[in-house]
Amino acid sequence: MSDATEKTEDDVALAEESATPTYGLSDEIVQEIQDAVERDDALFIHEKLEDWHSADVADLIEQLKPKLRLPFLKIMEGRLEPDVYSALDENVRDHLVDEMEPAEIAAFLNELELDDAVDFLENFEEEEQREVLNEIPPDDRAALQEGLSYGEDSAGRLMQRNLIAVPEYWNIGQTIDYMRDTEDLPDEFYEIFVVDPRHHPIGTVPLNRAMRSKRDVLVRDIMDTEQKLIPVDMDQEDVAYLFQQYRLASAAVVNDDGALIGVITVDDIVDVISEEAEEDILRLGGVSEDDLFGSVYSTTRARFLWLFVNLLTAIAASVAISFFDATMEAIIALAVLMPIVASMGGNAGTQTLTVAVRALATKELTAANVLRILRKEAMVAFLNGCVFAVLIGGIAWAWFADPEIGAIIALAMIVNILVAGIAGMVVPVTLDKMNIDPAIASSVFVTTVTDIVGFVAFLGLATLVLI
Amino acid sequence: MSDATEKTEDDVALAEESATPTYGLSDEIVQEIQDAVERDDALFIHEKLEDWHSADVADLIEQLKPKLRLPFLKIMEGRLEPDVYSALDENVRDHLVDEMEPAEIAAFLNELELDDAVDFLENFEEEEQREVLNEIPPDDRAALQEGLSYGEDSAGRLMQRNLIAVPEYWNIGQTIDYMRDTEDLPDEFYEIFVVDPRHHPIGTVPLNRAMRSKRDVLVRDIMDTEQKLIPVDMDQEDVAYLFQQYRLASAAVVNDDGALIGVITVDDIVDVISEEAEEDILRLGGVSEDDLFGSVYSTTRARFLWLFVNLLTAIAASVAISFFDATMEAIIALAVLMPIVASMGGNAGTQTLTVAVRALATKELTAANVLRILRKEAMVAFLNGCVFAVLIGGIAWAWFADPEIGAIIALAMIVNILVAGIAGMVVPVTLDKMNIDPAIASSVFVTTVTDIVGFVAFLGLATLVLI
Repeated sequence: MSDATEKTEDDVALAEESATPTYGLSDEIVQEIQDAVERDDALFIHEKLEDWHSADVADLIEQLKPKLRLPFLKIMEGRLEPDVYSALDENVRDHLVDEMEPAEIAAFLNELELDDAVDFLENFEEEEQREVLNEIPPDDRAALQEGLSYGEDSAGRLMQRNLIAVPEYWNIGQTIDYMRDTEDLPDEFYEIFVVDPRHHPIGTVPLNRAMRSKRDVLVRDIMDTEQKLIPVDMDQEDVAYLFQQYRLASAAVVNDDGALIGVITVDDIVDVISEEAEEDILRLGGVSEDDLFGSVYSTTRARFLWLFVNLLTAIAASVAISFFDATMEAIIALAVLMPIVASMGGNAGTQTLTVAVRALATKELTAANVLRILRKEAMVAFLNGCVFAVLIGGIAWAWFADPEIGAIIALAMIVNILVAGIAGMVVPVTLDKMNIDPAIASSVFVTTVTDIVGFVAFLGLATLVLI
Repeated sequence: MSDATEKTEDDVALAEESATPTYGLSDEIVQEIQDAVERDDALFIHEKLEDWHSADVADLIEQLKPKLRLPFLKIMEGRLEPDVYSALDENVRDHLVDEMEPAEIAAFLNELELDDAVDFLENFEEEEQREVLNEIPPDDRAALQEGLSYGEDSAGRLMQRNLIAVPEYWNIGQTIDYMRDTEDLPDEFYEIFVVDPRHHPIGTVPLNRAMRSKRDVLVRDIMDTEQKLIPVDMDQEDVAYLFQQYRLASAAVVNDDGALIGVITVDDIVDVISEEAEEDILRLGGVSEDDLFGSVYSTTRARFLWLFVNLLTAIAASVAISFFDATMEAIIALAVLMPIVASMGGNAGTQTLTVAVRALATKELTAANVLRILRKEAMVAFLNGCVFAVLIGGIAWAWFADPEIGAIIALAMIVNILVAGIAGMVVPVTLDKMNIDPAIASSVFVTTVTDIVGFVAFLGLATLVLI
């Protein structure tokens, strides 16, 4: 019993005892703070937010009504850590940063780690960027400019330039002394890099191994020589793949000459993996970017393109249907039933293409096994096609008391689900081969195929048999 | 120039120079090894795979034709690291492990880290598990059994039990000596935990800070007291959220009494984030699990359920259509055009529900802002509805030379896209409130709504106006 009372006196914040229930912000707290902002109660807010992590403050700002966000910032002036801004959703941040002076922004940037600062800065228009950079001390400015020079989503953007690199003939004692004397070290790092005279990385010593070694041990004798080096222009998706595949904690980044110029740590990769997965999820859903906090206008415009493409394919399907208008006029049951065939094909195709898109992203689906897996998907589609043919054939027969209609829809179902399974595999693989992101376009191609094949197979068979 | 030749002599494996082009297996290598397995050329294979990382060997096994996998294992007998098995796709692994003796499996388990061993073991049937556990030394067996006792996907399953915990009154020198004397340390760890006499965690010292401190500094004086503690039964999705939100490198796991019992490091979280994102992607696509390497039978069965649900909703839509068969018989253009309205609604709904499902997963969409965002989505839907109403209205008018049909489809389009936007937000939020994973069921509900509303709005309006 006394345990419980003691625990709250600990200065350790148990997850349950922090600002939030287990994680995330409770709605009550957001409401309390909104009320406090509205009555301009700075004292209440300062007290409430005293020990908050910057990520939670960023979440809070996102949750606030848009018109309360600037008043909130005014109240928190001088009390917000720069991390708050880098944790903010892009849409929300852009809106707020518009209100800040270049000198204010520069002051923030100085306190961010380089990769975060570059990320932050790249969102600005070129002229604004220049204004902000002018306010920054020359050394840091050069580092930022170099960071900005690497392609977006490249390893160069992810890396930290601060790292410990020592020559192979040093011993642990020298290395530790050097670390003690170096001021400008990153907050977190996991290994010491060993370099040759040309600054090419030749090995790594994990910190824990260094700590457990005597001072007179040479780094050369305890270093790992197997390491994955990351070219500075490698795409972040590929960097993330290397980290996942080889379970890396950190990896050296090298320039074109093979010299060590930076380090990427796994905590940066966590964000990349989320981003890339989010991108795939949104693209498969026909959304180009996360627009939750976007304005009505920008969201409407962003969604328009996909819907427009879909309008064209839907019209194409209608044109296909129109060839059979006489058939439908004669037997109206066909018009009633036809969406079923198209819908089942669309869903079966989506299942297959989802698995294929994911397997391409994780590099499980390759040229070596694509034919085998295509054969399997065709088998699966054929089997399910047969099962659903029997089901829908029976239902249609019973519904319209016409065995011929049952037989026709059953046959069309087999054809369309089989086509769906094949298209669901062939379309993403082909797009991938053409270096088009399969997540973005597979779905529209596949459903166009299944719609048209579905309508034409059903109405065409009916025309042949019944008319 | 001489640089290039020297580089290949380094024993550092530049990413480009490893077994693979930049990453992943080249198809040529898979083919070469398949050929070698077929002609039973052990020497060639042993040489080829000499320096391969176990993750690449696992990928290779997945790429091999299924009937060559066992012969390959025979050739590699005694040469495969246990990690190969934990890196294998579950479907492939199950198939292979069936061929192994319990003693062989136990020998593998002994070399895996605890969390990997537990993951590996949990896939077995209970009786097999017991047989394997009997072959394992009692100490390790107890640890494994405890691991298995935690809920699947819980923090207890993710954690390592090996860690460094020291009392707060120790100095750095004592800590380092203790680390030097401790044999059974994990390969990689990033911080030292400081505990009170009841073994409750009270702070952490990052390794790099410990290394840079003099031997006589007390750990208490340099420890961070802010730490997120993870209850052992926390769901892995929530653990991943904490790591991402607070950019943790590692975190202490505590039992119900608040005592330190393990540690989770960020590299374990990388896998969780991928898994959870994959789960969402697949579920949104109507697939229950990654079945790329599943058998035809198991894949067919797994896909069946979703297609069956879709069959029911498609039939419901057809029933709705059938109420208007007389209208369609009178004006067959309606049958030709009706899929357009339903299809556009389905796509608009999918866009909104994708954003909503993702925002619920990242906790950006909360009770505090759901009404605001619902209002925004409704606005977006209304605006796009109006734009597409004009487009399709004009096209339909021109196509069938009938302004009334144009006006009817335009109105139905506005209604259906508006309903799609609202349903796309309300359905996932409601499912989430009911503790049903919105990724799994949102899509079927939303498209059922948009299909039925699409058909009924269009055909119903036509019946009112034209008949």
